[in-house]
Amino acid sequence: MTITLAELAKQIGAVVVGDGTALVSSANTLEDAQPGQISFLSNPKYEKLLPATKAAAVIVGTAITCPGLNLLQTADPYYAFMQAVVLLHGHRRHPHQGIHPQAHVDAAATVGPGSILYPGAYVGPRAKLGRDCILYPHAVVYDDCVLGDRVTLHAGAVIGVDGFGYATHQGVHHKIPQVGNVIIEDDVEIGANVTIQRATLGSTVIDRGSKLSDQVAIGHATRIGPHALIVSLVGIAGSTRIGHHATIGGQAGIVGHINIGDNVVIAAQAGVVNDVEDRAMMIGSPASPSPYGRKNLMLQGQLPDLLARIRQLEQQVAELAGEPGKGTAGED
Amino acid sequence: MTITLAELAKQIGAVVVGDGTALVSSANTLEDAQPGQISFLSNPKYEKLLPATKAAAVIVGTAITCPGLNLLQTADPYYAFMQAVVLLHGHRRHPHQGIHPQAHVDAAATVGPGSILYPGAYVGPRAKLGRDCILYPHAVVYDDCVLGDRVTLHAGAVIGVDGFGYATHQGVHHKIPQVGNVIIEDDVEIGANVTIQRATLGSTVIDRGSKLSDQVAIGHATRIGPHALIVSLVGIAGSTRIGHHATIGGQAGIVGHINIGDNVVIAAQAGVVNDVEDRAMMIGSPASPSPYGRKNLMLQGQLPDLLARIRQLEQQVAELAGEPGKGTAGED
Amino acid sequence: MTITLAELAKQIGAVVVGDGTALVSSANTLEDAQPGQISFLSNPKYEKLLPATKAAAVIVGTAITCPGLNLLQTADPYYAFMQAVVLLHGHRRHPHQGIHPQAHVDAAATVGPGSILYPGAYVGPRAKLGRDCILYPHAVVYDDCVLGDRVTLHAGAVIGVDGFGYATHQGVHHKIPQVGNVIIEDDVEIGANVTIQRATLGSTVIDRGSKLSDQVAIGHATRIGPHALIVSLVGIAGSTRIGHHATIGGQAGIVGHINIGDNVVIAAQAGVVNDVEDRAMMIGSPASPSPYGRKNLMLQGQLPDLLARIRQLEQQVAELAGEPGKGTAGED
Repeated sequence: MTITLAELAKQIGAVVVGDGTALVSSANTLEDAQPGQISFLSNPKYEKLLPATKAAAVIVGTAITCPGLNLLQTADPYYAFMQAVVLLHGHRRHPHQGIHPQAHVDAAATVGPGSILYPGAYVGPRAKLGRDCILYPHAVVYDDCVLGDRVTLHAGAVIGVDGFGYATHQGVHHKIPQVGNVIIEDDVEIGANVTIQRATLGSTVIDRGSKLSDQVAIGHATRIGPHALIVSLVGIAGSTRIGHHATIGGQAGIVGHINIGDNVVIAAQAGVVNDVEDRAMMIGSPASPSPYGRKNLMLQGQLPDLLARIRQLEQQVAELAGEPGKGTAGED
Repeated sequence: MTITLAELAKQIGAVVVGDGTALVSSANTLEDAQPGQISFLSNPKYEKLLPATKAAAVIVGTAITCPGLNLLQTADPYYAFMQAVVLLHGHRRHPHQGIHPQAHVDAAATVGPGSILYPGAYVGPRAKLGRDCILYPHAVVYDDCVLGDRVTLHAGAVIGVDGFGYATHQGVHHKIPQVGNVIIEDDVEIGANVTIQRATLGSTVIDRGSKLSDQVAIGHATRIGPHALIVSLVGIAGSTRIGHHATIGGQAGIVGHINIGDNVVIAAQAGVVNDVEDRAMMIGSPASPSPYGRKNLMLQGQLPDLLARIRQLEQQVAELAGEPGKGTAGED
Repeated sequence: MTITLAELAKQIGAVVVGDGTALVSSANTLEDAQPGQISFLSNPKYEKLLPATKAAAVIVGTAITCPGLNLLQTADPYYAFMQAVVLLHGHRRHPHQGIHPQAHVDAAATVGPGSILYPGAYVGPRAKLGRDCILYPHAVVYDDCVLGDRVTLHAGAVIGVDGFGYATHQGVHHKIPQVGNVIIEDDVEIGANVTIQRATLGSTVIDRGSKLSDQVAIGHATRIGPHALIVSLVGIAGSTRIGHHATIGGQAGIVGHINIGDNVVIAAQAGVVNDVEDRAMMIGSPASPSPYGRKNLMLQGQLPDLLARIRQLEQQVAELAGEPGKGTAGED
């Protein structure tokens, strides 16, 4: 579709600074945009690209100006940009409707209306899918697992694999039947090759509106509160509870059997080993709450400087004690 | 099935403290258990939940008491609980037997009797599967790989992908044909989306009774001794040897070409870069053996405190040296 | 095939030291080689295995000697070994040609001549594959993605999954349609269960000749220059640019929106958070360039020793100040 800037601004809640009659028909990045395309600026790091962009207009924050360039100013440019992309491009149009013949749905499973299963999608016995779910190729839902409405599983995501539970007796690991399941609530999106273990007893729960990126690994009986954002390669062990609106950076790890509050931010590569309070920002491995944690991480990269200060002290102390030679030997 | 506590206690080697005629028919957690359900307590952290449980009875260690609650006391409550779950629930009942029509087994592969291949399971040329193996959806066995008896591959597990081997010549990476294979011995269970590389020459080996959780990545020509437990997202590089009964925590990494002894424990997120002796517990990245490693990791989270002590020393030393102003400037 | 050492030496550019009429027909490791097999030595760690090998001959560097053992000396033994394995064993012979009936290629996709799609391979709408590509079982190419010639996707690799992009508004994460794609250039090999996100706008690019091991996760709009080597479980966030000939160790993580130069080496488990200059070697998390980074990482494993030195200083300073008791209390 092609639309004037004035009409687009109206639809996304922005104010036109420039020519409201200019036309746009698609979206692109500041660097790659061509005439007729709308772009956006939300990360200040890229503001320097603004003067050189060929975009017909750019969605920006209310404080941004750029003479000679059409701007759509708005309080939340990223949210406005999202609306523009939905308007101009829409969401993916799927190549088929319903259950593809190369998908497999067990006879005792149920799939809600509007759900789309790509080739290779698998839904096991007694599993239940709500309305308008999307299972991309090779997404797997093990037996007895439950998906709400509008749940998306990307390619290779595995829901309900057995929890990692063995009782070790005389050196042999005996498998504990994993009789629980996984429950994925409404509007959850799960990235490619994610794995979520079923609970031994009860349920592993991913609560509504949560979004997991690729290759996240979730342990058994863990419960992740609504509206979490979890980046790639995060590992969360079993029986941990995470409140609402968690943000968890890439490759972070969280041990099992702890409680993590609401609105928590966990930095990339952090290792969380204890309970976390609401609104804490956890950094490092082992993780500490910021600002302490941030300072700690910075120091972790400055240890040769700390060592140099210790050596200097050793030499000074030796001199003060009347042992001028001590402390200067290269013992490190 | 429904069973009296007295009969259950007999089957799992426990002693009834309470009403042996009470009936149980299923298992559940302390928090979620209802009348008619058996629960268990093995992690002391959850002992506080005991008085409030609605469970008909709880399997506990021999030292645990709880007036008014039926208990099944035993030396190893987790092992007894495993037996109870097997007795009451049994292991998974598969929706079909043998090779599903949507699985693919190469004409030159062999699959032992009793093995179950789910839709999308793939077995390549000359691969051999023993008896009673289970390949969940999209589990992949590349050409020439060998699985023993009772091997389970969860969804998306990939056995025998090419080792990561290239000879770089004049800036171009030339692929070395990976003519080895992977051997998985009896009673191994492999989690979802695990990848195990075939050896360039010879074999990558996962020895009997080992259990790998999800998304573990094993390099080429590595050999992992019997009865290992490996948690999610662990990476083990090529040509490393790991003895029997290793326990490897989540997201730990192990470099290639090293030897790791028997009964070794490697902590979550550890980075192991050197040979490891029998019975060592390795912590941190780079990993050190405990107790040194444990202390080291604790200090990694306390660097601002160390810095404060260094600053304090600098100030004191400056004062002792008659330079009262030095050492107090905010140079950090 | 069977070949004399003299002929093999000629083909791989080596010099025979020993009996050029000896015959070899296959390759093996130093430890496992039998008469009639060729082996190689490139890692000095294994030189001690040379005298005991049963190999008919060993490909070695020009400085290596071993009386009584046939050697093929060459400047680059690993490259020569690669050539020998190609000569004696060849690359994998696939069980079928073209598109397997259990693969799925969308009607609007194109697949170049010579390409082989294994059972379960999926190619979405408008995707384009060049010549001689190999898609192993369950490799997935989402809509609109482009693969060059001789691209290999191992089992379960997912190309073009949606970028992890949401605009959060009033606590709800709104999905941004991911209208970009992924471009994989010629001669790229992608390991099992790798995930590469499509760009929101524009393209995520893996440039020619790059090799990714298993379970690597690449974020949206990231561009990885030609001839990269990326080891298992690496995570690279979105909109980062990496120059040519990068080498990235296992489990390393790289944040989004940074620039990494050419010929960079990133150590295993490193965490890269800032731009990196050409030819830097980055170590640690947060990563620093070597040699500083290497020293820093070493010190990260020696913190109890640093603490002991600080305590010693505290005691000495207290004594110098005339407070002999201070500094010795066990406050740690």
